[in-house]
Amino acid sequence: QEGDPRAGRRLAAGICSSCHGRDGIATLPEAPNLAGQNPAYVAAQLRAYRENKRQNEQMNIVARELTERQITDLAAWYAAIEVTATIPGR
Amino acid sequence: QEGDPRAGRRLAAGICSSCHGRDGIATLPEAPNLAGQNPAYVAAQLRAYRENKRQNEQMNIVARELTERQITDLAAWYAAIEVTATIPGR
Repeated sequence: QEGDPRAGRRLAAGICSSCHGRDGIATLPEAPNLAGQNPAYVAAQLRAYRENKRQNEQMNIVARELTERQITDLAAWYAAIEVTATIPGR
Repeated sequence: QEGDPRAGRRLAAGICSSCHGRDGIATLPEAPNLAGQNPAYVAAQLRAYRENKRQNEQMNIVARELTERQITDLAAWYAAIEVTATIPGR
């Protein structure tokens, strides 16, 4: 199932961005950046949090309320953020 | 404890890069990108995998062998990769 990044963006603005950042670059050191993250990975983690297979107090609470559609929308949104990676010089 | 990104780079080349990419952009859709990831987050996840508090068959095996020093070195390496995030236009 393909997620809708525009729907994901709206949802993320409400429930994800305070920790994970508007652009998917986290605002808290203990939270991961999600910009450009693989959508299959993000969706799998949200399902794992929802089912308490992955443990994190905050995320277990947030994910409990998510529908499958919302999960794929969120994954599509974070995947739509383009990231570039630059390895440091020696 | 501050990690050594150069030591982390060498270790990552051997045990992480086949899935997570030389530059921290994953080569497998089910693996997360690690480029520029928050070091406290990466270290916490490696410890959780090591202690089987977070479950993933591959990662539980890999992390079991890691020392605390190696964990902070790996976290420092991925944090040293500079990332930029660009939000898509509407």
